[in-house]
Amino acid sequence: MTNQFIPNFIKKRASLTPNREAIEFKGKTYTFSKLYDKSYQIAGQLSALGLKKGQYVGVLLNNHADTALIYVAFQLIGLRAVILNNRLTSAELAWQLKDSKAQFVVTEEEFSAKWHSIQESLPNLKGIVKEELVGSAFIAPIVVDEVNLEDVCTVMYTSGTTGHPKGVLQTYGNHWWSAVGSALNLGLSEKDCWLCAVPMFHISGYSILMRSLIYGMKIVILDSFDEKNTIQRIHSEKVTIMSVVATMLQRIVSELKDERLPVDFRCMLLGGGPAPKTLLEQCLTKQIPVFQTYGMTETASQIVTLAPEDSLKKLGSAGKPLFPSALKIINVNGREAEANEAGEIFVKGPNVTSGYLNRKEETEKQFAGQWFSTGDIGYVDEEGFLYVLDRRSDLIISGGENIYPAEIEGVLVSHPAITDAGVIGMKDEQWGEVPVAFVVTKDNNIQEELIHYCQQHLAKYKVPKQISFLDVMPRNAAKKIMRKELRKLLD
Amino acid sequence: MTNQFIPNFIKKRASLTPNREAIEFKGKTYTFSKLYDKSYQIAGQLSALGLKKGQYVGVLLNNHADTALIYVAFQLIGLRAVILNNRLTSAELAWQLKDSKAQFVVTEEEFSAKWHSIQESLPNLKGIVKEELVGSAFIAPIVVDEVNLEDVCTVMYTSGTTGHPKGVLQTYGNHWWSAVGSALNLGLSEKDCWLCAVPMFHISGYSILMRSLIYGMKIVILDSFDEKNTIQRIHSEKVTIMSVVATMLQRIVSELKDERLPVDFRCMLLGGGPAPKTLLEQCLTKQIPVFQTYGMTETASQIVTLAPEDSLKKLGSAGKPLFPSALKIINVNGREAEANEAGEIFVKGPNVTSGYLNRKEETEKQFAGQWFSTGDIGYVDEEGFLYVLDRRSDLIISGGENIYPAEIEGVLVSHPAITDAGVIGMKDEQWGEVPVAFVVTKDNNIQEELIHYCQQHLAKYKVPKQISFLDVMPRNAAKKIMRKELRKLLD
Repeated sequence: MTNQFIPNFIKKRASLTPNREAIEFKGKTYTFSKLYDKSYQIAGQLSALGLKKGQYVGVLLNNHADTALIYVAFQLIGLRAVILNNRLTSAELAWQLKDSKAQFVVTEEEFSAKWHSIQESLPNLKGIVKEELVGSAFIAPIVVDEVNLEDVCTVMYTSGTTGHPKGVLQTYGNHWWSAVGSALNLGLSEKDCWLCAVPMFHISGYSILMRSLIYGMKIVILDSFDEKNTIQRIHSEKVTIMSVVATMLQRIVSELKDERLPVDFRCMLLGGGPAPKTLLEQCLTKQIPVFQTYGMTETASQIVTLAPEDSLKKLGSAGKPLFPSALKIINVNGREAEANEAGEIFVKGPNVTSGYLNRKEETEKQFAGQWFSTGDIGYVDEEGFLYVLDRRSDLIISGGENIYPAEIEGVLVSHPAITDAGVIGMKDEQWGEVPVAFVVTKDNNIQEELIHYCQQHLAKYKVPKQISFLDVMPRNAAKKIMRKELRKLLD
Repeated sequence: MTNQFIPNFIKKRASLTPNREAIEFKGKTYTFSKLYDKSYQIAGQLSALGLKKGQYVGVLLNNHADTALIYVAFQLIGLRAVILNNRLTSAELAWQLKDSKAQFVVTEEEFSAKWHSIQESLPNLKGIVKEELVGSAFIAPIVVDEVNLEDVCTVMYTSGTTGHPKGVLQTYGNHWWSAVGSALNLGLSEKDCWLCAVPMFHISGYSILMRSLIYGMKIVILDSFDEKNTIQRIHSEKVTIMSVVATMLQRIVSELKDERLPVDFRCMLLGGGPAPKTLLEQCLTKQIPVFQTYGMTETASQIVTLAPEDSLKKLGSAGKPLFPSALKIINVNGREAEANEAGEIFVKGPNVTSGYLNRKEETEKQFAGQWFSTGDIGYVDEEGFLYVLDRRSDLIISGGENIYPAEIEGVLVSHPAITDAGVIGMKDEQWGEVPVAFVVTKDNNIQEELIHYCQQHLAKYKVPKQISFLDVMPRNAAKKIMRKELRKLLD
């Protein structure tokens, strides 16, 4: 008599704690009761438009409260959201929509130009403008009272640094276990409030919404990241937890100067790749409680996070796999690595995706049994703490030595004149590959000084053979360096 | 690629937070690392004795740290614990052991007389004395690295107020979901410490051990309940949460006098049946944060609990079903009851048992689809809050009116001279049944006054037709009134 069914998240939450605050956006607050009512209304509209349980429906929206309402409405009636990165070109969006076989897209006025261009290549795709959904007349939808944890809730395409993008299936169970695993690590208080300054079209943002429903926790949504506004909102909304990537954190740290975050602010959850050690040290000085974490679209956000008691002792580590999850490192010989030996990170757990939409073969390729091959490189120390080195695809092999761009980038940004840095490999006749760097700085006259600085901090073979200056670093919506763009600059 | 497997609880917990305190018993503390080592050692001994994964093994022990170590050792190697109530007679114990088909029992010196008597009726049953297990030489066991959430972890026989006892199957998933549902309701802090003054052979106690493993939380085990010691330990061990039944709470309240519990003590989880309203009001006055809860062996402890924000507003209610769970009330016509209409409580959720050991037919009888029939009577108010009235089997029907013994008992104990009260139905020619009361008091001369008191507080048909005086109320190990014993007194 076991089952995989549990109550519909928002319906249950609105029943348990109707009067708690759920979402704050630009001064307007929704309780869980209000969130349920609004999303119920939107679900009614979607049903009236012919959308049915189980369908894949594109979502192309900005970060605002309405987006959260629409996501929740999807959950209420069992629509599967194909969540689109709104910074992509219309050609890229059309590719993903075609790949997902979605018949509808929910979008908004701001993206009308993109939408028209998409429609040209996909004439059968139907568009729904969000302004039509929010606040229109009432039609009762057929609510999914109980969700099957194995049902697909969302699909997000991986950024695809190599090859074509693939739609990652995220089930209700994936989201549930991710939220629960995080709560068991970070704890959970009625006073918690999570700031969402990351895009909700990424798992980092969407997972905050899910935690809100599952925990009964208030979230504050920002339409975009701005360090001044962020610090101000942390104070005014009594934020206790925030998700960031390194560049966001760097900007917050610089903006703070001698100021401190409120004492109730208890967790700066830092994901999105290896962080420069200097940044972590600055946070230590400013008493910012940084918890490094490691996760990806395929793990429905965090899968490895540093526990509170280890955050100082293991600076630079992403921590240990959350309670329901596991990891192992496979070395170049295909065997499980020893302590401190680098290799590919494999992960496992109920928060790990069941695979890619309509891609059986690629799904199988990515799994070894239950183990998911992340493509990331790292090692685990004697005590079981994970240190992520880099993406495997970003690895530079120079004269047989492995070079991790993230390490060199960390050294470069630790130089006071450098605000951002990216490193890639360049073909070299003698060494196979050599590292070259791109930096953002106001002082273009420090090439020699930088090389000297690197020589002081890095083994000789890691010192960039060439340093170029950029006005701005090409980064994607997840703030990850787009190394493909850097490579184009070498051609 | 979905699965039902997650890491072995203690193994994972010891890896995540090895240095946190796990168990305190009589001044001795075990960290999770120590708990793992000790249970690993015991698991080795059990393996050497021939015990194997999947076997049902009896456990007849007192409340002490060793018992926790042994339970955890069972989990490490996948033994299924048939957990015996050590207050039962040897005949009752032998019955359960035979019913479970257990081949081994782990027991301790104190129960040697019971054990020898059991062995006489079950000569093939093998006994293992705990003193042999704890602290003996090292033999490496085969550890279950990942537990299947659908695997049976424990079996507990229901107290069997009617009919023969049945072995309730409790899977790892039942325990997991119970612990997670509770954390989502009560929150979770690194500082939490749960006092276990209830028997670990009951789900109320065993579930505290499970929460310790899953949350990484310290628990304080008492070998028996004593109000003085309890209050002292709440202070000295910085206890934040405690599980109690009404009689325990009553004794704590009386002992406290004008004293207060520490401010960090945040939850008195009150289960084990309906509580007298006067007791709840006393707690209110003394600022004891009482959270009424409703649960049973078949739901792996709590399934309905009052949320923090409702604890005052809904005094007397057991709350709403925890996040993963659901309830409904079925009225006498077999239909779903309306608000405030009493009927039988049905529950559902991943914490609900999959059934009874070796009793397919009785399991099916107890379920309507996924809904488990609790046999308890209650109603749900307009806002969805559950009020438990009584056990269906305890219901007194008098002249067509339903009378709930718990209500009358509540009135009786609210009288200052009465320390305990039990009410049952007595055959009556005119009314079918009438309520009769048994009370514990130092003043045997107040029969008339009590009747008068009841007349002031209860409808006429609820006023006991007869009041008898007892030196002590017959209560079982779960502190529930043994009405069977009271009935014998009427014969």
